[in-house]
Amino acid sequence: MPLKLKTKDKHIKKLAEIVNGPKSILYLKEDLLAYDCDGFTIHRHMPKAVVFPKNTEEVAAIVKYCASHNLPFLARGAGTGLSGGAIPINEEVIISLVRMKRLVHVDLENRRAVVEPGFVNLKLTNSISEKGYYYAPDPSSQYCCTIGGNVAENAGGAHCLKYGVTTNHILGLEVVLPNGEIIEISSDGIPDAPGYDLLGLLTGSEGTLGIVTKITVRILKNPEAKQTVLAYFDKVSDGSYAVSDIISAGIVPAALEMMDKIAIEGVEAASFPVGHPKDIAALLLIEVDGIEAGIDEQIKEILEVCKKRNVREVKVAQNEQERARWWANRKTGFGAMGAISPDYLVQDGVIPRSKLPEVLERINQVSEEVGLRIANIFHAGDGNLHPLVLFDSRKPGETEKALKAGTACLKACADVGGSITGEHGVGIEKMEEMRFVFNEEEIQAQTAIREVFNPKNLLNAGKIFPSPGRCVEIKKEMKATSVKSEEKLLEFS
Amino acid sequence: MPLKLKTKDKHIKKLAEIVNGPKSILYLKEDLLAYDCDGFTIHRHMPKAVVFPKNTEEVAAIVKYCASHNLPFLARGAGTGLSGGAIPINEEVIISLVRMKRLVHVDLENRRAVVEPGFVNLKLTNSISEKGYYYAPDPSSQYCCTIGGNVAENAGGAHCLKYGVTTNHILGLEVVLPNGEIIEISSDGIPDAPGYDLLGLLTGSEGTLGIVTKITVRILKNPEAKQTVLAYFDKVSDGSYAVSDIISAGIVPAALEMMDKIAIEGVEAASFPVGHPKDIAALLLIEVDGIEAGIDEQIKEILEVCKKRNVREVKVAQNEQERARWWANRKTGFGAMGAISPDYLVQDGVIPRSKLPEVLERINQVSEEVGLRIANIFHAGDGNLHPLVLFDSRKPGETEKALKAGTACLKACADVGGSITGEHGVGIEKMEEMRFVFNEEEIQAQTAIREVFNPKNLLNAGKIFPSPGRCVEIKKEMKATSVKSEEKLLEFS
Repeated sequence: MPLKLKTKDKHIKKLAEIVNGPKSILYLKEDLLAYDCDGFTIHRHMPKAVVFPKNTEEVAAIVKYCASHNLPFLARGAGTGLSGGAIPINEEVIISLVRMKRLVHVDLENRRAVVEPGFVNLKLTNSISEKGYYYAPDPSSQYCCTIGGNVAENAGGAHCLKYGVTTNHILGLEVVLPNGEIIEISSDGIPDAPGYDLLGLLTGSEGTLGIVTKITVRILKNPEAKQTVLAYFDKVSDGSYAVSDIISAGIVPAALEMMDKIAIEGVEAASFPVGHPKDIAALLLIEVDGIEAGIDEQIKEILEVCKKRNVREVKVAQNEQERARWWANRKTGFGAMGAISPDYLVQDGVIPRSKLPEVLERINQVSEEVGLRIANIFHAGDGNLHPLVLFDSRKPGETEKALKAGTACLKACADVGGSITGEHGVGIEKMEEMRFVFNEEEIQAQTAIREVFNPKNLLNAGKIFPSPGRCVEIKKEMKATSVKSEEKLLEFS
Repeated sequence: MPLKLKTKDKHIKKLAEIVNGPKSILYLKEDLLAYDCDGFTIHRHMPKAVVFPKNTEEVAAIVKYCASHNLPFLARGAGTGLSGGAIPINEEVIISLVRMKRLVHVDLENRRAVVEPGFVNLKLTNSISEKGYYYAPDPSSQYCCTIGGNVAENAGGAHCLKYGVTTNHILGLEVVLPNGEIIEISSDGIPDAPGYDLLGLLTGSEGTLGIVTKITVRILKNPEAKQTVLAYFDKVSDGSYAVSDIISAGIVPAALEMMDKIAIEGVEAASFPVGHPKDIAALLLIEVDGIEAGIDEQIKEILEVCKKRNVREVKVAQNEQERARWWANRKTGFGAMGAISPDYLVQDGVIPRSKLPEVLERINQVSEEVGLRIANIFHAGDGNLHPLVLFDSRKPGETEKALKAGTACLKACADVGGSITGEHGVGIEKMEEMRFVFNEEEIQAQTAIREVFNPKNLLNAGKIFPSPGRCVEIKKEMKATSVKSEEKLLEFS
């Protein structure tokens, strides 16, 4: 029986057949509007259609159809990505994986779980926490982002200092290649799996090499104990040195977060204020976890470091409620900036820890040069900065200034031997900035790999790597568009 | 001035010029004999020449020369590899990196060091241990193997259970590509570096994608405290269950090693006997490290687990001397088999921890089927088995039987969802066995990547991936050659 569709487009009809019916495809302009951007909202572009496959075979069939008809396509999870990885810049068919959201299997004995890509990050921990286990990578968007998206972006999070980012927790993948073939890559916890490390290559490839349809992840035993410290500093440099000192003392905290004065102003004006003093220059939120017996010793040492670095006030969370309140306050993070600025642009640079004072000072200069306030709220322990450039897109020229400031912050990171992304990916946002860290040969080596997987360049084309014409064009469009912080998802980091 | 060489071969003359003189090249048959195999001695083949470059530029010049004259070439470190990765099966020019052995830079503050590829693994720890730091990956050959070779093979070691294998400690690489171009790939400790994970792809690619000429590694702070436990079991299954129980208890030991009865017979007959009872079925060597305060608690729990699993005797090392003696005994490992058998073949399979009892039982069956003893000495904590097939190559047919037994052991691992190598690599040894874990598409996806880097297939060709003709031919030769354990290096794992 032919499907009833409000279109004569033969491709859309065929795609609707593949996913078994009109309820699994969107193609009308009003329906597609919600898919013109992801968490990176400066650039918007409409897809051709959005299809919702229910299983791997449907994904493979869609991909085969697109490949044989030269239709560009890309995969999308919850759309919380921050660098534009899921934005359809080539009028792609979006393959939404949100209906593939099963928790397929949990194997506590061997510490692993199998999920479909649309399974929400936090749900995994919620499903196994009663039995004493959890999934470690915790991007701030974890209550809504999908594990498939986490794999694409190699997502990080506050607790990745000790436990590593997504790639350190992926044990196997089922992948639909851009020609529609299905392959399985599995390390299954093998320390050094045979052959090339395709698992590592696919993870963090930002949806440009294949579409992940099943994921085996490592799960961890809940730590026996946790303690959380909050420390207020009058000087940013003292806070920065405390970060280095803690690591030098041989402590690897589960999390080691920093916020500066403007960031604190933001989070205190948002949904979860905790009453941080308004006149401090920086705060550190430090969490240690592990076996009960060792924790007190570590906390003692952390308190000593803070005192040595002239901390104004330092306290240990007295109970789980207090700890949760501190974290909720931190995790409002980027969204909270909406409370103190009409718009903001988040950047994601990385530097060697020892360069923190120097780079924070340089970000300060950038702020003065462009005449925009820049808040800093970030994973200090692994030197992963998140400068938040505050601006007002209604004022002529401010969007351009903000973009300029963002690029200048990344340059500052690259100049001290750091890099242009720590966890948000490159997407369409930082293609030009790739040149800060890679030369032409190094970029070529990578695009050659993309061509192996993706010879027709139909899957998520024009992302990550600078290809002069395309890149400039997108950047131009970006500058002409405005960013509204209200339009962004409230919560991501 | 033309160089004085005992050859008229124009390629050798030209290569000698590149490395500045006759002392940096070997080309006479008697000199080349030492380079006809690595730690995998079943197959031997002579190289065309061995060149000893002193720096990256010389490596690049050699590679460019080979590439433009279609001369096959490969890189070699200390030659301790166990799967034949450095064996010149195509009469390669061997680029020996042993003269590039500088410790270039140590940055304690940011916890990293830069070394040349010929720098010996253990020397790094020795260079920084007084300041309280060490380099974690510890293959048993660490006193002589090079970090460049470790990168090629993604080497593991006894302490990789807690700290991860080589790939988890590599922060940056300088690489000469097969066309002679030099690229730098650096994560510099960045949790999620931009672009594709070339660092991960190169690490463990067994010298088939490029030649590493500089390596930035992560260094770690020495743990505050260490405790080591030795436990004797009357049943292998009790020992196996104890392994699972320890991990289930939420403890991540720094090392969790197992030896069975035959292995114990071997190590007790070798250089460092410690007096293990001869009649036990298995022993566990368990080490925990971390901050002082937590260690006793963990040891207590480990002792309880062992008792619950009917341990015959369990003891904690009373001092550093005792601990060192236990480790020396364990690390004689493979070499020790020479004391109880004329020849041995080591295999390197991986299984989910929970399958230990089942697979050890299957290995037992294999032993009975082929009529050869098989010792087991392995990293139990991460399920990385090392069956050692004992045989006598002088007896007709025993080499073939040993190879058959090795393959059967790997099949047993693959059949329970495991894999065919945990840390030794595939090399020329396990190309056919790759089919146990990869189908044709999955192998194709990998060989396509090799072609991107290596379109002329001159660099270390014919390794890792099964290519029917070639592979069968090598296997045939392997069966016709014998293996002498005395010829092997005494020490590797």
